[in-house]
Parts: sequence; structure tokens; C-alpha cells
Amino acid sequence: MISIFSDCATIEHALAFETALARAQAAEGVIDREAAEAIAAVCATIEFDLGDLAEEATLAGAFAIPLVGRLRAKLSGSAASAVHKGATSQDVADTVLMIQVCAAAKALASDARRICDSLRAHALKYAATPALGRTLLQDAAPIGFGLRLAQSAAGIEDAAARLAAEVAANTRVQFGGAAGTRSGLNDKGGAIARSIADHLGLKAGPPWHARRVGVAAIAAAVGILIGAMGKLARDISLLAQNAIGEAREPSIPGRGGSSSMRHKRNLTGCQVALSAAVRAPGLVAGILSGMPQEEERGLGGWQAEGPTIADLFLLASGSASAMAVVVEGLAIDLKAVARNLGASGLGADIGESERVVLELFANPGRG
Amino acid sequence: MISIFSDCATIEHALAFETALARAQAAEGVIDREAAEAIAAVCATIEFDLGDLAEEATLAGAFAIPLVGRLRAKLSGSAASAVHKGATSQDVADTVLMIQVCAAAKALASDARRICDSLRAHALKYAATPALGRTLLQDAAPIGFGLRLAQSAAGIEDAAARLAAEVAANTRVQFGGAAGTRSGLNDKGGAIARSIADHLGLKAGPPWHARRVGVAAIAAAVGILIGAMGKLARDISLLAQNAIGEAREPSIPGRGGSSSMRHKRNLTGCQVALSAAVRAPGLVAGILSGMPQEEERGLGGWQAEGPTIADLFLLASGSASAMAVVVEGLAIDLKAVARNLGASGLGADIGESERVVLELFANPGRG
Amino acid sequence: MISIFSDCATIEHALAFETALARAQAAEGVIDREAAEAIAAVCATIEFDLGDLAEEATLAGAFAIPLVGRLRAKLSGSAASAVHKGATSQDVADTVLMIQVCAAAKALASDARRICDSLRAHALKYAATPALGRTLLQDAAPIGFGLRLAQSAAGIEDAAARLAAEVAANTRVQFGGAAGTRSGLNDKGGAIARSIADHLGLKAGPPWHARRVGVAAIAAAVGILIGAMGKLARDISLLAQNAIGEAREPSIPGRGGSSSMRHKRNLTGCQVALSAAVRAPGLVAGILSGMPQEEERGLGGWQAEGPTIADLFLLASGSASAMAVVVEGLAIDLKAVARNLGASGLGADIGESERVVLELFANPGRG
Amino acid sequence: MISIFSDCATIEHALAFETALARAQAAEGVIDREAAEAIAAVCATIEFDLGDLAEEATLAGAFAIPLVGRLRAKLSGSAASAVHKGATSQDVADTVLMIQVCAAAKALASDARRICDSLRAHALKYAATPALGRTLLQDAAPIGFGLRLAQSAAGIEDAAARLAAEVAANTRVQFGGAAGTRSGLNDKGGAIARSIADHLGLKAGPPWHARRVGVAAIAAAVGILIGAMGKLARDISLLAQNAIGEAREPSIPGRGGSSSMRHKRNLTGCQVALSAAVRAPGLVAGILSGMPQEEERGLGGWQAEGPTIADLFLLASGSASAMAVVVEGLAIDLKAVARNLGASGLGADIGESERVVLELFANPGRG
Repeated sequence: MISIFSDCATIEHALAFETALARAQAAEGVIDREAAEAIAAVCATIEFDLGDLAEEATLAGAFAIPLVGRLRAKLSGSAASAVHKGATSQDVADTVLMIQVCAAAKALASDARRICDSLRAHALKYAATPALGRTLLQDAAPIGFGLRLAQSAAGIEDAAARLAAEVAANTRVQFGGAAGTRSGLNDKGGAIARSIADHLGLKAGPPWHARRVGVAAIAAAVGILIGAMGKLARDISLLAQNAIGEAREPSIPGRGGSSSMRHKRNLTGCQVALSAAVRAPGLVAGILSGMPQEEERGLGGWQAEGPTIADLFLLASGSASAMAVVVEGLAIDLKAVARNLGASGLGADIGESERVVLELFANPGRG
Repeated sequence: MISIFSDCATIEHALAFETALARAQAAEGVIDREAAEAIAAVCATIEFDLGDLAEEATLAGAFAIPLVGRLRAKLSGSAASAVHKGATSQDVADTVLMIQVCAAAKALASDARRICDSLRAHALKYAATPALGRTLLQDAAPIGFGLRLAQSAAGIEDAAARLAAEVAANTRVQFGGAAGTRSGLNDKGGAIARSIADHLGLKAGPPWHARRVGVAAIAAAVGILIGAMGKLARDISLLAQNAIGEAREPSIPGRGGSSSMRHKRNLTGCQVALSAAVRAPGLVAGILSGMPQEEERGLGGWQAEGPTIADLFLLASGSASAMAVVVEGLAIDLKAVARNLGASGLGADIGESERVVLELFANPGRG
Repeated sequence: MISIFSDCATIEHALAFETALARAQAAEGVIDREAAEAIAAVCATIEFDLGDLAEEATLAGAFAIPLVGRLRAKLSGSAASAVHKGATSQDVADTVLMIQVCAAAKALASDARRICDSLRAHALKYAATPALGRTLLQDAAPIGFGLRLAQSAAGIEDAAARLAAEVAANTRVQFGGAAGTRSGLNDKGGAIARSIADHLGLKAGPPWHARRVGVAAIAAAVGILIGAMGKLARDISLLAQNAIGEAREPSIPGRGGSSSMRHKRNLTGCQVALSAAVRAPGLVAGILSGMPQEEERGLGGWQAEGPTIADLFLLASGSASAMAVVVEGLAIDLKAVARNLGASGLGADIGESERVVLELFANPGRG
Repeated sequence: MISIFSDCATIEHALAFETALARAQAAEGVIDREAAEAIAAVCATIEFDLGDLAEEATLAGAFAIPLVGRLRAKLSGSAASAVHKGATSQDVADTVLMIQVCAAAKALASDARRICDSLRAHALKYAATPALGRTLLQDAAPIGFGLRLAQSAAGIEDAAARLAAEVAANTRVQFGGAAGTRSGLNDKGGAIARSIADHLGLKAGPPWHARRVGVAAIAAAVGILIGAMGKLARDISLLAQNAIGEAREPSIPGRGGSSSMRHKRNLTGCQVALSAAVRAPGLVAGILSGMPQEEERGLGGWQAEGPTIADLFLLASGSASAMAVVVEGLAIDLKAVARNLGASGLGADIGESERVVLELFANPGRG
């Protein structure tokens, strides 16, 4: 996930954008084919000092400016003037971000899938195992031990489905030029945008420079998924308390030790997920705060989005991979489960727990 | 909108829940029909001192506790023990909140519709009117004057569609009893839940006491809509600056005056929408923060949701009704539009502005 | 606390502002004494229909506009033109808010004091009582039972001291007129501001219409206090788990019952404090988001502050009064304390626990 | 600022902690001097593969665990068992963070100072220059041109003073051992903590593992400073609009160009500051959300703090250095100032503007 949002990947995708743009424009007759192939050739081979580029980007206010400058310097004639034609810095930045979001969402979905599959297996296995249900942190009534895990699984599955849908709907190419009018392209702008989108595996659509609803929806969906995984981590961390001891994180050499207490098995995975759940809501708020962007392209609001979106996916990925390990190796202590229920004196009527577990898994995409 | 979330409405919906519950249980043979009708009769006629009830609810930690106590006191025999059978306080609170969310979303959709319809008319009318496009708060390039309005309309329409979809998917009845197992109901819990849902106009489904993904998704969708309307308000407030003067809020007696400056026409509507856009992101963050709820029913997290959801809808509603008035009466000064473009010396090539406007309106539900 | 921020109180303070303004201007010779006394007399006796006023305020964009209109309508001659002289709506709104903040902070400090005093007594009594210390939710090492309570007390005391200091430093009168220049006052603006401040129990200072650092600092300090009380609530709710049982909330008739489980004693007080701790951070974020306010007086940012500040104090007050009851009646079960430590097999070496407790109480105002 | 929070710096400070700890313990007779000097020698010379260390740290849940392991492997006999004695991973992590906060705050203060000094010079120079004051984004009344700049300066100065005070008060050494009891140290724990603090340039005090009020206060103060700089950036960006043109960012080669529009001079500095002001509030909210940490040392809450604190300082530093350049080279166009005021027809009565400017600079530390 770190590599998906790395500077290297950013540059690589920006070069892919410039290549796709040039070829699309050549196909529509806006630039000539030789120029397009010259641009593509330079994009395929150019190398950068990332430090220098970053410095100039900071001064310029956008990394596309020094990048395009370097491309142009390597080209001559019609190719030099054809590069980046009709595009603006934000076209590059937003398109690159959308490519990264697609890749990040795909990686994340795979870990979320692992969590849900593993939880489902546990939940079905223990759906009818009487256990102590707890509400408001107090002993409440018997439940099937698998019910709590099924609830977490259903929440994560719902959240993962929402994220997948928002990513599918909103990862669109950005191509509108300086003021979002696709000017200077002989009315071929829409066709060019579609072609770039096809090349890059994105959806097409009109420019969305200052219309950030899609970005906000993706950010919120990531935040919700982090929260849903946080609920699972909260439950496991409570079950793992020594006085309860119904479940523990897996025992792996080097994992969850303590620099001062040899006897401890710390909740390393839950810690990652809970920490992410503390940090994510404010990041989502930051994205929403930036939505009222000025006019054709805003000042400050959209520039705040890139690093925040990256942080959200990094947190989600950290949480998902940590919790996948936790649930796949979850150590369940059925004796402790039985002992705690017995000590509560609350009997063993688990009501329709099994049925609820089945309902939770029967209907994908519920809230 | 204030009345939708008022204490009165809350009590009324709680009584509707208890009535629906009793009748559903009678239909499934869990309680007898006479008891159900006795409960329904008391729910239809009982009156409360809201102050007393609120005080006891604070002490008890949930308003269903004193409410059910009062119902029970008015009943006798099997009806007294049948009231609220198999339900827990959170079943009432969550179901009531979902009823309120449905009503609030419906009211909000209507104002959002007014904004979009009005923006669409303006945008189509002025799609080809050359105007100055501005980026990063600087003069940038010519656009069709309608393009900026169309972008706002598309953002609001997308956000409103998302909210409608999340509300439709996630306003489910809550019915699980103490620990979410639907115990003590002779395996009729699922059927009872479906019946209550039918009575109250909600969707059915397994209990979701500590699975708050749906609530979070609704909150985020409201926050995103508020942000999308904030973008419109930002643009109009910038256009209304005296030095630009391309658009102004409508002139209405008593509106937007100043206690010290008689000459001013303040941006009263934009102020409401921008203020909402400042407040909403933190409220959404609060909902996301509460997601990692403990075990079967959490402590603190879900109790934080009700007032926050109400605040979000109140802000959205205030913003939408204010901006509906603003756009419906928007005073556009075409002379100023032309003068500003002329002064910029940037020509009048508006590229594919018209085409982009049409694309923005052609494809409902884009990001 | 609700009454401090009520519409009634708001109107009352606004009238006090207009009275103080008129008298200060009379003392400085800016208006004549008869006019000032006529204004004061009307302010002392005028009555309003709050509903009508609120409606006109919404339309006007500020409640001072219809308020001053009504005052002026009751006056004639020089008094009618002298009322609100040199002031702007925001002068009234901000000054009223600062009066309310002073009152709210005072009320809150008293409940925070109760919590700290009670915690101190418990902490000193049990400073050397061996108990189980827990880290990362796992049994860790022995501590003095009072140490954990002393840590919470020190956090709350520090946070309360910070809030008191920020309130003392930043509750300043707002008086600058339309653009913050104190114009039309014969250079007596500064003196008038000082006099109003004296009358109203606030500090004087230059206008701060768009300089919201002080408001932000107060909001953050309230949020930090809510967080510090949340830490206490978290600890008590964990100690009160049935499997641990070292402390419980006090047993009070009507308190913490359950609509479905007679055996439960719910954590009603902790629930209030934890819920507040979930909601407050986003409210603080909302205040910080609004800081970049436009020019002399902003659009949207400052209008977002009033209700948010009120919400923060309401949450803090609810948390503080709930936790004061909790700690004053805290039921500590020393047998459970000893049993849990014994079961851990971690011995009873509590290190310098007692000394740390004393240090925590020795040095007021530490971080 | 990036280097202050780099992994290299983190390791370096962690080694400094272990050295200071060993020497302090030797001075108090808790370990022998030879062991201490052996530890110090290893800390001075040991080299790491940062990648390996990071990987093990992730698995272990804390970077101190593999770090101490490596130190111990390089030592033998009493030195091997003396290293990290009485300390826990969080002692290292928190102390390192406080060292970094001190360094970051110092660097930040210097840029804030540059901004305030420059603004003061501009503000005094133009205190009496009649200009157009604007409120709610509308022309309002004349002001001295310097007044708006003085208001920003006063806000930034106040915020910077608050940050300095919070940093001075709250950057304390963390030393409490596993459960914060300073056990196993022969009652020398307090003395050892003081000695470590002296070595590292921090304040001493009792352990604060789960008492995060000081960290929250520092975070909030950084957030407030970012907001105050955002206000300045908002004003300059509004003044720089082409239709207003009263001030512009300095013209520097390579700065603020556009990849599509050669004529533009973008607001690169304001963009950085406004973007920071969009992102910071949510980061502060994240810190506040984590405050209710569990028992002696929490799970998830404090682990969320380090990267967030680093992000806040990075944003603040970026904003401050960008705005220092902006205000030091601010291009003020007095003709535009006069022209805009003239066009407004509002006259030139700037009231007490000059006096307010002087008051704003007279009294350091106002809200």
C-alpha cells in the first residue's frame, strides 16, 4: 500500500497519463501521430531526480509543472508543443490519484475478504455455542458465541461493498484543461477523455475539478470500513482481557511481546485497528471540510485531499492486514466461554442466535 | 425538520413501535390479541409530562425505561407483562431514529430537488454565455457562465442520490432484545421484526445494535450533501463580491440587511450553507468515532449518535432551504459577466462548455 | 447549563449589552444621558415574542437586527438614533456569547472540582492498596489502587485549569462596529469598549471580529476537559465489568436499570461521559475549521461557532455532573481488587505508587 | 521539520534516552557505572538497518522492543541486564516524541516570528492608509489598510505564544515502567526521572502514560496556529483576486506558474496555508478522540498520537514557512487600494483604525 502511493508510483502514473493523452489526441487528429509516439517514447524512458522534482513542485505549487517542463525539454518541434496539450496540472494530479485509489481499493478488498471469510467460518462453527452476551460493558444475556463475530463480519462486508461501489462509480479520469472547458481541442475533448480513461482503466465523464463529491464518498467509505474493523478489534480486545480470556490474538514469535513484561501477549493487531479507528474520522472530516471549493478549481481544498486519501488507505490497509492475521489465527478458549457464562448465572437460552447468524450471512450488502 | 426530531415526535414514534410490536406478537401468537389491543389503546391515548419523562430518562440512561414503565402502569394482567416483550431500550431508540431519518431525508430531498431544478434551468440558459473562469482564485480562462452552476447542480444531485440510496438501504427496524438474540419469542423473532418493519415503513433485517455501518453511511451521505451545497454557496458568495457582481442573492424585504450598514445586501442564504459546511464534517467524524462499539450493545458510542444525526439533518435542511431560495431568485448581472470577461483580456473561447453542461445533466448519479 | 445558552438568556444579555453601550457612550459624551437612560429603561422592560424574533433573525441573518429594530420602535428622538450606535450585529452576538461562556465555565468548574476532590480522597485512601495494573487491556503489574484514580484526577485538574485560564484570558467584549474600526465615536471607542466590558464583567481589548483564536482556544480547552473526564469514565467502565468488579457506579433508585434485564446496573454516568468524549472532538474540529474567516468579518465561519460552543459546554456539563455523582458514590470492592491481583500471580510490589500519587497532587497545573 | 520526525531522529533520540537512563541509574546507585558506560558506548556506536527494525517493530507493536533487543545483544553481563531497566516501550516512545516536539516547536516559532515581524511592519506603515473594509464578503466601510494585517498578526502571535507555553509546560520526560509505578528502582525512580529530563532538556514529572492532556493541549495549540495562519492566507488570497488586486504574493522565478496558463501568478503560499487549515482540525480531533485511554497504558489511543503530532507540526511548518515568504515579499498595490475604496462610494472615515493597530501590537498575548 505504501508503494501504491509512493512518489515513484505517482510519477509513473503521471507519465502514463501524458502518454495516454498524447495517443488519444493523435487518434482524434488533435496532434500528429509522430508527436504522440515521441512523447510516449520519452515518457517510457525519462528518469528523474525525485528530490529536485519535489523541490520545484513545492515552489510551483503542483508537481505536473516541473514534470511537463522536463518532458518538453526532451522533445522538440511539434512534439514539444503537443505534450500536455489541453491539460492542466490538476488533470494529472486527480487522474493519478484515481489510479492509485483503484489499486489501493483492490488490495484492501482482498484483506477485507480474508477477514470476512475467516469470521464466517468461526461464526458458523460457534453459532450455537452458548456464551455470555454483554451490553453497556455489563453481563447481559446468553448468546451464541458466533453471533458477535457474525455481526462484525456483516459490518465489514457491508462497508467493503460500499467502498467497492464508490470506487467503481467515482474513479474517473480528470480531463478538462485550465478551466474545465476542454478548450482548444476541436470539440474532441469528450472523445479524448474517454480514450484516456480506457487506457488507464478508469471511468470517463465530464471534468470534476471543483466537484469533489466522488472523492468525499470514497474517503467516507474508507473511514466507515476502518470503523467496522475497529468494532471487531474492540470486541477481541475485550474478550482477550485476562479476566475474561475467551479469545486471544494468535501467538507468533516476535509478536506482541513487551519490553518490560515477559508474561504478556499484547494485542498488536487490535492495536493497529483501534489506532486506525481513532485517526480515520478526523481525516474524513478533513476531506469533507475541503468540499466547498472555489469556482472552476479551488485553492487549498483539493490540494489537501491527496495526502489524506493516501493516509486513509494506508490506515485501512494496516488495519485490514493486521485483523486478517488476528482472525485467521484467533485462539478461542471454549472453556473460558463456558466458565464465564456459568458464573453469570444467566442460563443458556441463546434465543434465535443461530438464525440471526444465518440471516447475517444470507444477504450480502446489508447495512 | 425541527419537528421531525422533536421530543414529541420521538415519543409518538416510540408509542408506534410498542403498538406495532404488540400487534406483531399477537399475530405470531406470542402474546394474546386482547393484550395487544389493550397496549395499542393505551399507546393511542396516554399523555406525558415531557419534562418528568426526560428527567427520569436521564437518570435511567434511556428514555424507553420510564416510557415503558408508564405504559405498564396503565395496564394490568397479561397486557402489563406483554408490553415491550422481548424488546430492549435500544430497539425503541434505534427504530425511532430510523423513522425520523426517513422523514427527514424525504423533506431534505424535496429542497435539494428545488435547488437542482433551478440550477439546471439557469445552467442551460447560460451554457453558452461567455464568462470569466477562475481557478485558485485567479482569472483563468473563459467558460460558459452556466458551466459553474451545472457543476454545482451535478454535485448536489449526486450527493442527494447517494443519501436517498443509503437511507433506503439502511433505515431498518431494530428488534433484537437484550443481547440481540430475539430470545423468548418462540423462534418468531424474525417474523415479528418483519411485521414491525411493515407497520412502520422500515426495512426488516437482523438486529444491528452494535453494527453501526448503516448509521455511519447515512451520516456521511448527509455530510457530503452539505459539502456539495457549500460549494454552491462558496461560488455564489464569490460572484456576489462587489468588485465582481456577476450574481447576487435575491432581494427580499427583511433579508440580509445589516444593523450598521444600510447599503449592504448580505449573503444570508450562503451564510447558512457555508456555516453548515463548517459544522458538518466534525459531526460526521463524531459518528465514525463511535463505530467501534462494545460487544452486543455499546457504551457511549451509540448514545452519541441520535443528537448528532438530528443535527446533521437540521444543518442540511437549513442549508437546502436557504440555497433553494437563493438559486430560485438568483439575480444574474449579464453586463457584469461580460465586463469582467472583457477586462481580463482572455478572449471568449469557451471550449466545449455547452457540451460539458449537457453531459453533466445527461447522466444522473455521477460522482 | 441549558438555561445559560437559552434564547431567553441570549436576549437578556443582548439587552444588557445595549444598555451598557448606551451608558458608556453617555459617559464619554457620545450620546446624551437622557437618551442612554431611555434606552436602558426600554431594555429593562421590553418583552418579545421569541418565535417572531427568531423568524425575523433567520431572514435577516443575525438576531441583533430585529432586536435593535424593536428597541428603536419603542424609542423616539435622539434615543431612537442613539441605540446600538457604532455597533454591529456581531458586536452583540460575540459579547453575548462571551458572557455565556463565563457563566458556563464557572458552573462547569464547580462540577470538575467535585470530581477532583472526590478522586483525591479515594486516591489517597487507596494509594498503597495493592491492585492489578493493566496495560493494553492486559494484566501488567501491581499498582496502588489509588494511582489510577490519581492519574485521572490530575488530568481533569490540568484540563480544568487550562479552561479557566483560557476563559479568563479570552472572554473579551466585542466592540468595533461595522468594520472593526470603532468609527463615528469621536475617538472614544476604546474607552467605551472598556466601560462596556466593566459593566458586563468581561475583559476589554481591540475588536476581534475575524480573529477567532480566543474562541478556538476556549473550545479546545473544553474538548480537552471532556476527553480527560472520558478517560476516567473509560477506567470505571472497565473496572465495573462483572468479570473484574473492582468498582461500580453508585446504586440509586431509578438509575441505570434496563428495560429488559432486571439484574443489570448500567453505567449511566460513564455512558454520558463517554458519549460526550465521542462527540466533542468533531465539535472542536468544527471551530478550528472556521478560523480562516474572511477580511473584517467572515461569512459562515463565525456563524458556526455559537451553537457549537454551546454544545461543547452542554456536553462538558453533562459529563462533569454525571461523573461527579459517579465518583462521589463510587462503590469500590476491595475483595475483588485483592482477588484479581492474587489471580494474576504478579505479586504485590507496587513500586513508588504512593509517591507518584502524592506527586500528582502536589503540583497543580501539570500536563 | 521532516528530519525532526524522521526515523533516523527517532532512533537517535531513543538511544539518547537509553544512555540518559543508564547514567541516571548509575548516579543513583541502581546499576553500576561500568554497565552504564558500556550501555552509553553501545548507544553511541550501534548501527541499524532501519527497514529490518521497522518490520520487527510492527510485529512487536512497539519499536523499543527490537531496539532494546539489539542493544542487549551487543552487551554482556550486568550491562546486558541493566539496559532499559525499569523502563517500558512507551517510556521511550513518549520521551522521544517530546524531544521532537520541542525541536519542532522551536523551528516553527522562528517562522511564526518572521510572519509577525513582517506583518507588523506592513501594518504600521499602512495603518492610516484608507482602504475598503469588507464584511460577509461585501463592501462594508473604510478601514486603515494596515488594520487587517495587524489583526492577522495579533492572531498568529497569540497562537504562537499559546503553543510556546503549552510546549514549555508539557514536554515532560516519560518514565514510569510497565504500569507507571517506577518499580524495581529502590525508590529512586523520581530522582532518575529528573536526571533523565535534565539530560534530554525536558521537564520532569510523574508518569503520564494514559494521561494525555498535555499532548492534546500541544496538538490543539498547533491546530489553532494553523488556523490563525489560514486566516491570513484567506485574506491575501481574496485581496489578490484580479478584480480587487490590492495585494499579491511575491513574484519569484519558478513560483506559482500554471501548466496551462502562462499569464497566471498562482497563490502558492496561500494554497499551502489554506490546505493546512483544511487538514489540521481533523488531526486535532483525532488526538482528542484518543484521550479516553484504558487504565495504566491504553490500546490504540496513544499509538495514534505520534504520527498525528508529526503531521500537525509538518503542516504548521509548511504553512509558516510559506506565509513568511508571502508576507515578506507581499506586493501591495496602493493604487488598487485607493481605486477600490473610491469606487465603493463609502468615503474615507477609517475611524480609530490606527489606534486599534497600535493596541493590537501593544499587548502581547491577547486572544
